[in-house]
Amino acid sequence: MHTLTHFRLCPFSRAIRLALAELDIEVELVEERPWEWRPEFLALNPAGELPVLQIEGGPALCGVYAVSEYLAEETPQETDEGEAEVFPLFPGHRPQRAEVRRLVDWFNGKFNREVTHELLQERVYARLRPGAPGTPDVDFLRAIRANLRYHMSYISYLADHRRWLAGEDLSFADLAAAAHLSSVDYLGEVPWEEFAVAKVWYARLKSRRAFRTILADRVPGALPAAHYADLDF
Amino acid sequence: MHTLTHFRLCPFSRAIRLALAELDIEVELVEERPWEWRPEFLALNPAGELPVLQIEGGPALCGVYAVSEYLAEETPQETDEGEAEVFPLFPGHRPQRAEVRRLVDWFNGKFNREVTHELLQERVYARLRPGAPGTPDVDFLRAIRANLRYHMSYISYLADHRRWLAGEDLSFADLAAAAHLSSVDYLGEVPWEEFAVAKVWYARLKSRRAFRTILADRVPGALPAAHYADLDF
Repeated sequence: MHTLTHFRLCPFSRAIRLALAELDIEVELVEERPWEWRPEFLALNPAGELPVLQIEGGPALCGVYAVSEYLAEETPQETDEGEAEVFPLFPGHRPQRAEVRRLVDWFNGKFNREVTHELLQERVYARLRPGAPGTPDVDFLRAIRANLRYHMSYISYLADHRRWLAGEDLSFADLAAAAHLSSVDYLGEVPWEEFAVAKVWYARLKSRRAFRTILADRVPGALPAAHYADLDF
Repeated sequence: MHTLTHFRLCPFSRAIRLALAELDIEVELVEERPWEWRPEFLALNPAGELPVLQIEGGPALCGVYAVSEYLAEETPQETDEGEAEVFPLFPGHRPQRAEVRRLVDWFNGKFNREVTHELLQERVYARLRPGAPGTPDVDFLRAIRANLRYHMSYISYLADHRRWLAGEDLSFADLAAAAHLSSVDYLGEVPWEEFAVAKVWYARLKSRRAFRTILADRVPGALPAAHYADLDF
């Protein structure tokens, strides 16, 4: 079996866990606290970043970019009925796949910088460290929340014009976006009541079987928001 | 002809310019100052990020990730001798391509956050804005230079063990790394004398035909280091 080194609230790890579940690939999960910079972990991935997918009898794939593209290169296996049954992470033709990647980049780059990374840093990572500071900075949180509203508007706009974020088909862009939102939602920071269309899109993802392990996650010392695992939130 | 919206010292734009030149794809260059947030540019790429490759009669591809993977999906055209003659940005088999992508991520993610973005922000972007502050912060520059030395060691390590950074073949990892280093080198910040192996690797790239337009770049108000365009530096 493959092994996925991850951290429960890490949005990149979650995106890959969702992709693996959609692809019906079972993995053993090993948790890592990346901020501890353990030498054994740095030997696995010198960048010190999550996730790392150790292929059984094969290479260790480092980071969400290398892992997602590696999984997408899986040769579709034909079923008895002759249909290719692998979920395409990057569906469609070249321009469509470029649109999926633009949005993956949006969430793993821009959304992460402006929301997820800052929020996790301030509300989770900093508090799990020894000698952590007390309460989060109120002005800082206010700025992140303003960023989040801007991104929620963009998700609503996309979900209002398309079946899934990148077009007609479910893609890795939806999984990446949902992974970030799920981490933010764990902390109770998503103002769902203001973004009804985005909420409907997220509810469709949340009710998929692949989402179950994500919703079962609990981080010691940081309990999830009350509605976090509720499919009817 | 395709159109590439870029900024001369933007490392992501440079990586794509290098890839296009290696692929022998001619483009019209249009310069954009991304920090100006022009509405026309945001209409092209809502993320406000460079580069954008407008395919003639086709889609606008946003960001280095979407553009590089789109270019890599180009079907190799067979020559008269029956050989596939397209330079593979991600050469080799799946694990090898994952290694290329790990390193692309290293440079476009980690190296950018820890060196290029900070350096360009402090020494170029901030100074091209109206009402720019005076001299750069000395302590801040010292920290960035320490980061750069760490990355130079890693490049030296890779270049000492492999023909190119990701393995036997030239790949987009080399182009991405060289793009970042070239922007940093424009500012005269690379301590080449301390990293002889990395210097030999960079010199091999610098002497390629694809590098010429990069070396001809001049940014108003920020002249390049004396050795910048020198192939025998």
